[in-house]
Amino acid sequence: MAKKQTPLRIIPLGGLDGIGKNMTAFEYGSDMILVDAGLMFPDDEQPGIDLILPDYSYVLENEEKLRGIIITHGHEDHTGALPYVLMDLAKKVPIYSSKLTLGIIEGKLAEHKINSPKFRDVSNGTHINLGAFSIDFFSMTHSIPGALGVYMRTPAGSVMHTGDFKLDQTPIDGVTPNYQAINRFATLGVDLLMSDSTNATRPGFTKSESAVGPAIRHIIKNAKGRVIVASFSSHIHRLQQICDASTAVGRKVVVTGRSMVQNTKIARELGYLKIDPDDIIDGFEVEDIPDDKIVVMCTGSQGEPMSALSRMANGDHKSFTITADDTVIISANPIPGNEKSVQGIINSLSKIGCAVYDKSTTLVHVSGHGSQEELKLMLAMAKPRFFMPVHGEAVHLRAHAKLAQEMGMRADHIFVADNGDTLEMVNGKVGWGRPVESGVVYVDGLSITDANPVVFRDRQKLASDGIVTVVSTVSKRSRAVGNVEISCRGVSFSVDDIANEAQETVRQTLQRMASKEGSNVESLRKSSRNSLSNYLWNKTRTRPMVIPVVMEV
Amino acid sequence: MAKKQTPLRIIPLGGLDGIGKNMTAFEYGSDMILVDAGLMFPDDEQPGIDLILPDYSYVLENEEKLRGIIITHGHEDHTGALPYVLMDLAKKVPIYSSKLTLGIIEGKLAEHKINSPKFRDVSNGTHINLGAFSIDFFSMTHSIPGALGVYMRTPAGSVMHTGDFKLDQTPIDGVTPNYQAINRFATLGVDLLMSDSTNATRPGFTKSESAVGPAIRHIIKNAKGRVIVASFSSHIHRLQQICDASTAVGRKVVVTGRSMVQNTKIARELGYLKIDPDDIIDGFEVEDIPDDKIVVMCTGSQGEPMSALSRMANGDHKSFTITADDTVIISANPIPGNEKSVQGIINSLSKIGCAVYDKSTTLVHVSGHGSQEELKLMLAMAKPRFFMPVHGEAVHLRAHAKLAQEMGMRADHIFVADNGDTLEMVNGKVGWGRPVESGVVYVDGLSITDANPVVFRDRQKLASDGIVTVVSTVSKRSRAVGNVEISCRGVSFSVDDIANEAQETVRQTLQRMASKEGSNVESLRKSSRNSLSNYLWNKTRTRPMVIPVVMEV
Repeated sequence: MAKKQTPLRIIPLGGLDGIGKNMTAFEYGSDMILVDAGLMFPDDEQPGIDLILPDYSYVLENEEKLRGIIITHGHEDHTGALPYVLMDLAKKVPIYSSKLTLGIIEGKLAEHKINSPKFRDVSNGTHINLGAFSIDFFSMTHSIPGALGVYMRTPAGSVMHTGDFKLDQTPIDGVTPNYQAINRFATLGVDLLMSDSTNATRPGFTKSESAVGPAIRHIIKNAKGRVIVASFSSHIHRLQQICDASTAVGRKVVVTGRSMVQNTKIARELGYLKIDPDDIIDGFEVEDIPDDKIVVMCTGSQGEPMSALSRMANGDHKSFTITADDTVIISANPIPGNEKSVQGIINSLSKIGCAVYDKSTTLVHVSGHGSQEELKLMLAMAKPRFFMPVHGEAVHLRAHAKLAQEMGMRADHIFVADNGDTLEMVNGKVGWGRPVESGVVYVDGLSITDANPVVFRDRQKLASDGIVTVVSTVSKRSRAVGNVEISCRGVSFSVDDIANEAQETVRQTLQRMASKEGSNVESLRKSSRNSLSNYLWNKTRTRPMVIPVVMEV
Repeated sequence: MAKKQTPLRIIPLGGLDGIGKNMTAFEYGSDMILVDAGLMFPDDEQPGIDLILPDYSYVLENEEKLRGIIITHGHEDHTGALPYVLMDLAKKVPIYSSKLTLGIIEGKLAEHKINSPKFRDVSNGTHINLGAFSIDFFSMTHSIPGALGVYMRTPAGSVMHTGDFKLDQTPIDGVTPNYQAINRFATLGVDLLMSDSTNATRPGFTKSESAVGPAIRHIIKNAKGRVIVASFSSHIHRLQQICDASTAVGRKVVVTGRSMVQNTKIARELGYLKIDPDDIIDGFEVEDIPDDKIVVMCTGSQGEPMSALSRMANGDHKSFTITADDTVIISANPIPGNEKSVQGIINSLSKIGCAVYDKSTTLVHVSGHGSQEELKLMLAMAKPRFFMPVHGEAVHLRAHAKLAQEMGMRADHIFVADNGDTLEMVNGKVGWGRPVESGVVYVDGLSITDANPVVFRDRQKLASDGIVTVVSTVSKRSRAVGNVEISCRGVSFSVDDIANEAQETVRQTLQRMASKEGSNVESLRKSSRNSLSNYLWNKTRTRPMVIPVVMEV
């Protein structure tokens, strides 16, 4: 009787339900590795939440198997859960990534007081063994330097994971995707390809990062006063081009915004961002320099209200206030959900009267993710037997699957999965495995909690209708109702207009109830809530949340 | 000594700080007319608000002058404030608009129990006199039929107001912009042009509405199962094209969604929407018809959770549930702020597995507003002496002003205004006038209130941090602190985890305070709030709103 073979389990814990919180576990026998540990930022559906993490219980439950964590690149949707994972793990697990990625992570871990992590610097061409996993790294191009793809072999078969990528033939740092490696791995055999789906609905080929340089340089060259360029602080390629354009026309660069200052510092120390120290100056040095010799490189491309750009536009920035003579370049695209805030900052800048350039009018931004032709090229080069589109919303994963089918791949060789679905590979053949616990956890202050729909419903209700507290006292002995106090927050009516009548309404109801036999605090609470709710609806046609408190005294 | 001449005052009360709530008063001596009375829908910055209206106090204060209200077309950003204005006016003022616009308004007024309004049906070529105002209407093309431009003459000079427009040479109903009228008015003289700025940042010429017909027909023709088309319910041109495409390939049309049912009914009755009664069927008739003979025309193009499309996608619709065999066309663009909800519905549909077409992949939507070339054409035809860009955000108004300057208009002949700024015209010469009261009012339930930043701040605070109520009793005689009750809503920690310790913390603080001489309810309230806030911050690193109530018993 043939012995049951050990499968390679592919366990996506995040990244399949939206752009963000990427995390996949790979498990073979008693060995497990984790690729990426990202977070997602909350939106209106999760009011008041700081961060969203994938539920990584599965990793913790199998901690004894965990041989290492691989981070493909330094964006927060690939690194942001790492502090939480590391704090939850009992032992120190090695983290494998490129120098820049580790540099960025080091700063984040320090904020969480996680010191001396086990960093393992890897790069294009590095080979490592982690338990049963034989792993090769290869360079990829993306909107941050040091992006790596991963090729892993196990006795059950092999997987290629692209990380996030575009196929840029003219990257700013000269580090092109390693096509030779990808094709060599294809020759060795790629049983499963996991490939970035972010732009799977976009036809064509994403423009090279170097396409934006000339536009930025042209604007800076022709600007009369200062030029303020807002971009993503991790987009070192972009920052390099802004610096190059500035120095080429004889301007000095000033950096402002916390993460911009931090990331440019790390990138310069590690040699990823190259600018003559004389050409990059501090805010306080600006006064001696004419406006037409200054470029301000800043955060705030998403219209965040506390960012450097917003503060400069509103006159709240310590060094700069934007005036009609300035030129502003928004060298980024709005992340979905931020469109309105970005439009808001553009309107504020328009009112100031300065010139504003963004993606909609000038080529000052290109995507970091490959479009359909690049995704097809990747499939054509890697020649996988099986395919799993990753990193995207439902629509992107399915569009990517469709591309693979158009290229002749059988539908039953393509796995469009949800987080927590697993694949199992045996002898290089892939099928569905049993699902694992998955989902999201929320970080709010110190607490890390499971999704609690009640809290969000309450918060949305509070935000839309406000809250009214009604406190009453009832004498234990006489059952006489004493004070009734009403206080409101976030309601649209004036409290003074209703207070007396509302108090009297509640008091009368309560007095009727309290005199009845068998009345207790619980029944009195209910009737004070009901009578006040009804009163407010009739009077104001609003339904604020009512918190009734009844004290027996 | 020359007598001071009576000026024509141009008083924009809305429409200059965003797309929405358009409203302009024109005042000459003892006569006033109002052009448009629109609303704006709230966003995240105004949680829980139903509607936003322009502050029209100026109109009410000068009611005795008001000779009539002109509505340029039937969109809510031009009509939606009308019920409120009419309710606030003491006398019945005539409303001038096209038949379709009046039909749509009639339904809205009926919802507000405003009956037998003074409707005056006007159309292309109509001339009316309202006090000192001599007014001509001319047809324009827009994403709703019956759109009118207005040319008005007064002894002080003349104004042309475009309403919202594009210049469509192949409109669906054959009603092109009346270029002859515009040029005739130009010959008579246009002292001030007020022109739609919505698309002033878009280069080129907006595609004709008739460009979307072939794409929609192609999709419907090739669909295997049902086709569901979501669009704006007021976009009768679009609905006509959907109906035409459906009947051309032998499919019946079913209409679902409250406003879609209502608007198609009005438009058919008034002859704006033409479809054979046999070809439009009720939901209950669908069962007898094969899927490939059905087109469902529905609301929900903005991803609204309660709309027909969302309900069909979630299995909550009474007649239809979308399946993998269906085809969905989103024949609309996301209104700014709705991008994420629209993407959400596209993801839901992708998960179902049906084919989804939207603007990003197929020509199933074009804008109803003219792009830069059309705006320049309008300026070139109207040949105004002075120009005021209207209907747009700051960035659009300024872009429109820039276009006019590029065409050779003097900068000091262009007026980029804020709501409440006024212009004064004397002898056809325009200058700034004194500002009037302006702003926004909010409709929330029954109350119509001025902007109250405290309410919004409270609501946002409640949504992000939740609320904790702490109620304590203190004996009037002994000053002993009795019960302390704590209740929480929308907080991220578990109440059970903190209740005992928090109660004890507050009780101790209160007891210390209460025993002091001079302590009163107010000081006790403050100290119970402070002690609880501090406790929660130390324990949970969150800062919920704390409502302290202290009852002396």
